[in-house]
Amino acid sequence: MGIAVIYGSSRKNGNSDQLANLLVEEFEADKIHLSDYKIEPIRDYRHSEKGPYPDDDYHQVLERVLAQDVLVFTTPIYWYGASGLTKTFIDRWSQSLRENREEFLAKFATKTAWVIGIGADEPQTKGLPLVQQFQHIFDFTGTKFAGYVLGKGNEPGDILQDAEALAAVEDIRSKWRL
Amino acid sequence: MGIAVIYGSSRKNGNSDQLANLLVEEFEADKIHLSDYKIEPIRDYRHSEKGPYPDDDYHQVLERVLAQDVLVFTTPIYWYGASGLTKTFIDRWSQSLRENREEFLAKFATKTAWVIGIGADEPQTKGLPLVQQFQHIFDFTGTKFAGYVLGKGNEPGDILQDAEALAAVEDIRSKWRL
Amino acid sequence: MGIAVIYGSSRKNGNSDQLANLLVEEFEADKIHLSDYKIEPIRDYRHSEKGPYPDDDYHQVLERVLAQDVLVFTTPIYWYGASGLTKTFIDRWSQSLRENREEFLAKFATKTAWVIGIGADEPQTKGLPLVQQFQHIFDFTGTKFAGYVLGKGNEPGDILQDAEALAAVEDIRSKWRL
Amino acid sequence: MGIAVIYGSSRKNGNSDQLANLLVEEFEADKIHLSDYKIEPIRDYRHSEKGPYPDDDYHQVLERVLAQDVLVFTTPIYWYGASGLTKTFIDRWSQSLRENREEFLAKFATKTAWVIGIGADEPQTKGLPLVQQFQHIFDFTGTKFAGYVLGKGNEPGDILQDAEALAAVEDIRSKWRL
Repeated sequence: MGIAVIYGSSRKNGNSDQLANLLVEEFEADKIHLSDYKIEPIRDYRHSEKGPYPDDDYHQVLERVLAQDVLVFTTPIYWYGASGLTKTFIDRWSQSLRENREEFLAKFATKTAWVIGIGADEPQTKGLPLVQQFQHIFDFTGTKFAGYVLGKGNEPGDILQDAEALAAVEDIRSKWRL
Repeated sequence: MGIAVIYGSSRKNGNSDQLANLLVEEFEADKIHLSDYKIEPIRDYRHSEKGPYPDDDYHQVLERVLAQDVLVFTTPIYWYGASGLTKTFIDRWSQSLRENREEFLAKFATKTAWVIGIGADEPQTKGLPLVQQFQHIFDFTGTKFAGYVLGKGNEPGDILQDAEALAAVEDIRSKWRL
Repeated sequence: MGIAVIYGSSRKNGNSDQLANLLVEEFEADKIHLSDYKIEPIRDYRHSEKGPYPDDDYHQVLERVLAQDVLVFTTPIYWYGASGLTKTFIDRWSQSLRENREEFLAKFATKTAWVIGIGADEPQTKGLPLVQQFQHIFDFTGTKFAGYVLGKGNEPGDILQDAEALAAVEDIRSKWRL
Repeated sequence: MGIAVIYGSSRKNGNSDQLANLLVEEFEADKIHLSDYKIEPIRDYRHSEKGPYPDDDYHQVLERVLAQDVLVFTTPIYWYGASGLTKTFIDRWSQSLRENREEFLAKFATKTAWVIGIGADEPQTKGLPLVQQFQHIFDFTGTKFAGYVLGKGNEPGDILQDAEALAAVEDIRSKWRL
């Protein structure tokens, strides 16, 4: 079982990073910080000839994601949704659908995904649209949506005080250990 | 009543552009295409000294938005959410909260907002997390969330065949004419 | 195309009744007022031998529903959800799943459904969980969820002043006329 | 801190009962099984003189609920929502709003509520509309919505195998012990 963690925060070691790091600390994981890469917004060519697509790091990042079986998307909850970094990466999947739809979907259909979202303003309820959005995304790609953790954090390290989030993380690890 | 339309599509004259243009065709409106500007992802300085913030077009765009009373956010529904362009712009509002929280919120509290989302995959139901996300956003900023239109479109011009979307647009215009 | 309207209000001619009546006024429709019938809460026999089920009007009502191709569920939005009358009727479908699962699902899979919800407190946004709940219900039964109308009403007749709801109703009728 | 558990299942000792019983086992709690009472659907008198209201057990149950500070609503997830028993009880709160609005809201504003929903079909995601509905309910009544547990169960005792639900319950208890 190979794990990829896709970090959507603009800074290292914030609350969403910390909780994901705790989750995978005893496992090998490919840690992919989106902020380390240049990924431009999708160019929408549905109404025209396709291309050219941005010459950036998208394919490199996607290949790392697709190389693993278990995907953990971890993002700060910005304005009640996934971060722009996360959303911009996912938007680019439409490019892959244009380039090689069958192969792209076939690969995602074999994967299992978890989502971590950490926010300051009532994440347990106001973070639910983010979860529902990922539910629709994974329904589309045929990916198994295994679960999510909505945790509370604002100041650095807050998340390590959120007992329920820690318990949820431990629960995921206990499944992975089997 | 001044209107700003914030276009979140990467291309001009797609379905979300077309429906918004129809909405405002008999009104003066400041048409702000986010794809014309350079707006980088938020840098999150909550755990550190603030700044430097990206030297890009964010403040210029925000000023145009804040200069109007009625805001229309129009976005293609990409992966069941607002486009990355739209989300990245909104994420940057956190920078404004750090720079001048009271003034930022006071201005948004006087505005009325509408949201248009156009998608290909059952937008009336699978677009609802997008609406709920905007609901939380406008609750936070104190902005009146006057309504939304979820329309169906994939091929160019599809949206102009969506009778329910056209009726919703006409309903908004009839309110604006009063 | 036969239409059944399932009215979930406790009283005749309230706002949700009025909008549904307007919708079907030029069509033949079987008008089923749940408040005219005795339908008890589901008894949950998943952990035991099934039965006995309540001796009430459930089967009679269900037969009228299943006799039509197009189903319109119209309900006041009580406490941000469908009325207890509506929910109690739907809960009883679990009894039908126990009694004759295949036949029950096969029948629902041929139908097209619309939902009308009328509420006083921001129905366009606070009514969305009701829509999402019906989305899951119709996904389960394989029923085509053709659309919904969320309208605003509190005092008698309010709904007939809701231009957007009236436009949505007219849009449905224009589809039915084809 | 007095606790009331409001059980929405039609049968004793099902999965939603079991998880709630585990939650409160070391605390004193008033256990209110809605299925033990006769509570009729709301009669909606907004358009007419109020009354007569049903002569049933509603007020007796409500008084027991209002006598405690902490409310735990536990319900099987039937058709992606709270059980009809639960919904019918909550619908009747509208009667209390008519009878004595200020007192009713003042009492609920002092309370803290938790929600437990146990379902068989992907409760972690398909149960979210139920949570969002309760969020709107508690926003209206001014009640603090402290959290929720969505657990998986179909066969008897399933819920006691759901490690994440058990962890969430233990987390709530640890807060109550303080």
